[in-house]
Amino acid sequence: MLRILLEGGFQGRLYPVNRYGGEVLGIKAYTSVKNIPGAVDYAFIQVPAKASIEIIRDCGAKGVRLATLFTAGFGESEADGGSKLEQELVSAARQSGVRLLGPNCMGIYHPAENLSFAIGLPAESGSLGALCQSGGNSVHLVRAAAQRGINLSKVIGYGNAADLNEADLMEYFAQDPESKAVIAYIEGAREGKRFFRALKVAAQAKPVIVFKGGQSEVGNAAALCHTGSLSGSKEVWDSLVKQARAIQAHNIDECVDIALALLLMKSPRGRRAAVIGFGGGATVQAADDCCGAGLVLPSLPETIKWELKKFTRLAGNIFRNPLDMSDIINIPPEMGHAVRVVGNWTGIDLLILHLGVEIGPYSLLNLNTLEALGEALIDAAKEVGKPAVLVAHAICSPHGYQEVSRLQEMCSEASLPFYPSIQRAASAINKVIKYYETR
Amino acid sequence: MLRILLEGGFQGRLYPVNRYGGEVLGIKAYTSVKNIPGAVDYAFIQVPAKASIEIIRDCGAKGVRLATLFTAGFGESEADGGSKLEQELVSAARQSGVRLLGPNCMGIYHPAENLSFAIGLPAESGSLGALCQSGGNSVHLVRAAAQRGINLSKVIGYGNAADLNEADLMEYFAQDPESKAVIAYIEGAREGKRFFRALKVAAQAKPVIVFKGGQSEVGNAAALCHTGSLSGSKEVWDSLVKQARAIQAHNIDECVDIALALLLMKSPRGRRAAVIGFGGGATVQAADDCCGAGLVLPSLPETIKWELKKFTRLAGNIFRNPLDMSDIINIPPEMGHAVRVVGNWTGIDLLILHLGVEIGPYSLLNLNTLEALGEALIDAAKEVGKPAVLVAHAICSPHGYQEVSRLQEMCSEASLPFYPSIQRAASAINKVIKYYETR
Repeated sequence: MLRILLEGGFQGRLYPVNRYGGEVLGIKAYTSVKNIPGAVDYAFIQVPAKASIEIIRDCGAKGVRLATLFTAGFGESEADGGSKLEQELVSAARQSGVRLLGPNCMGIYHPAENLSFAIGLPAESGSLGALCQSGGNSVHLVRAAAQRGINLSKVIGYGNAADLNEADLMEYFAQDPESKAVIAYIEGAREGKRFFRALKVAAQAKPVIVFKGGQSEVGNAAALCHTGSLSGSKEVWDSLVKQARAIQAHNIDECVDIALALLLMKSPRGRRAAVIGFGGGATVQAADDCCGAGLVLPSLPETIKWELKKFTRLAGNIFRNPLDMSDIINIPPEMGHAVRVVGNWTGIDLLILHLGVEIGPYSLLNLNTLEALGEALIDAAKEVGKPAVLVAHAICSPHGYQEVSRLQEMCSEASLPFYPSIQRAASAINKVIKYYETR
Repeated sequence: MLRILLEGGFQGRLYPVNRYGGEVLGIKAYTSVKNIPGAVDYAFIQVPAKASIEIIRDCGAKGVRLATLFTAGFGESEADGGSKLEQELVSAARQSGVRLLGPNCMGIYHPAENLSFAIGLPAESGSLGALCQSGGNSVHLVRAAAQRGINLSKVIGYGNAADLNEADLMEYFAQDPESKAVIAYIEGAREGKRFFRALKVAAQAKPVIVFKGGQSEVGNAAALCHTGSLSGSKEVWDSLVKQARAIQAHNIDECVDIALALLLMKSPRGRRAAVIGFGGGATVQAADDCCGAGLVLPSLPETIKWELKKFTRLAGNIFRNPLDMSDIINIPPEMGHAVRVVGNWTGIDLLILHLGVEIGPYSLLNLNTLEALGEALIDAAKEVGKPAVLVAHAICSPHGYQEVSRLQEMCSEASLPFYPSIQRAASAINKVIKYYETR
């Protein structure tokens, strides 16, 4: 943790504590929290479980307000006395006036203060906040979001939730001005009713995405072993999230998919989409995936077809919605023109731009125009001004990966949501539209 | 097409035909099929739709047995007379004794004869056959399968199915000795009853995976425009595939997922799986995904826990199923040992090895042991001898992509099915188990 803070450029004072004194990573270590000369705001504790209770008392004596307990082996543990030890820990904290994150958690990532919990996480702040009951999922979330072009305002990991729990943290995020949207990964609610109230308030203030881990019986048991959480039934959670008007997700990647549409895409006026891509089979699949996810693909009117036929051939194209523009896919300016023609049609609320790289009768990789094509599509979408996303997928050959990554970067720079499949894009967009509909 | 055949190293004689004569890619072109000096077995035709009928007659006169019509603008087309032209085409073919693939299709990929329909497809033959109503999906299938370590025996594209249709091709694949399993991408059945009979026969002889494109109303309409297919309702197809004891898939990647489990994994005796991985949140998700897909994850018996505790610590590990081996994830020989201990447990039928690269409190990328870890897991799985798969996923940073690709290659070399997510692995395995259960 000290190394992570040093490498992350944390600007505050750092005091290593080790019962044998000496130095840690070249910094003088104190034998007790109580021997530290200056004031201490926050403690990160990674000592054996049994030793942690005394440390908490020391923290209290020193005036520490908040401690993160990385240490595991409490309520989640099979070992004898884990739950009892956790109760003692909480009593010690209450008596000492110290609030706890954890035990069994990684604590806080807050890039504005260069506070981090893993090596190599972004130093830039964003506007997405998260409370996360799993350290692994926290790291996954921050990395996956950054990869897709959005950053976190802060992530608060809270592990076993022995003291500060999902309800406290949801109350915090409801009023946190740094967080315009919130993701909550929760394995079980310590205070179900209070959490429900907090969720309702938060979801009125800003969009909240809830990902409940442990929805199957075995997943439930795994959650019990992971964070000591009693998970609650899937049905209860489904209805709780729905009633609170929050948005439900089922994995971290889906949380990011939804956050992307919330933060980068204008709010659509409705669910009528146009899909512009190429390849017959890909077009049929896009239709099935969009309809399966609840989007509506209205038929192209004759006026729009007529506009398109001015500069494209008929053979090889399909002038329906989804549009198959195989004929001009290798001519970026004409593809841009097609996006403008279709995008300005008043019959649709949003645009899905769709490039199957490495699939299709044409491999876009062989055309050497993928970057120019991406640029033309992104520029045209910006010009149209309607909500829009770009979907590009490859089978992940090295060359395909490279090209799709470049497209993803271009989308990030242009603040256009990027998705790796129509299915994921359509599902995220639909959930976001449903969210706006309930408001 | 000529360029593709030349670059692909086709060994037979090639006769370009062009009405103006001259040369095509340095090869003398004949002004008519009838002027070709030698015998002609197979013709690939890409002339305007209206000109194709005379060419078919010429082919008949020359004794050509089979022609692929790349040309579009027939039954699938909005243009006036497309359907009528298709009828004329079929009449001409019947009168001339020529069988047709298409029109509006890419024809045959048969690596054993270096016959291909796209640049850069594998030259190696495999044991997976496919009939595919979309050229784009055909190319996607061949590339995606190769990327995952399996090759195709042959793919037959058949577009509008004006002459040879899904029933003919299914009859062919049922008895094709080069194909041990079959994938069928179908947008609509020309001869529903005959196809159903052929599918039943084929599925008795070998596993058949059916992917029906155009299951939504809009997808249906897209299929009509793509290959002139009248798609049929989702319910009819669902029950047809089930009654025939074939396996249903919903996209090309899922076809490959299932084929991988069919061709590379031993047939499991049941659906009891053990998942061995690391990270608390990842473990909870793995449990939910496996259970959601219909696999059973039995609890670890005390004897196995006791074996594992001999060489691992308790803290950080979860000795349930899924197993969270965070404590030893960076010690490849111990991870191999854990796989042997769990794999030899008689309570399970199959093993799922699970590496979340770039996620988790530990990033495997920082440990520099990922290749050694992969090796240890693959070797241990081979030693155990039960059906096994490896799942590895990254958020796709360049480094993560590189490392996961390397793992995928190692799995290919070891004939161990590789999946990019637990969800996809569990769903494919479950479908394969269901297939074996009906036999």
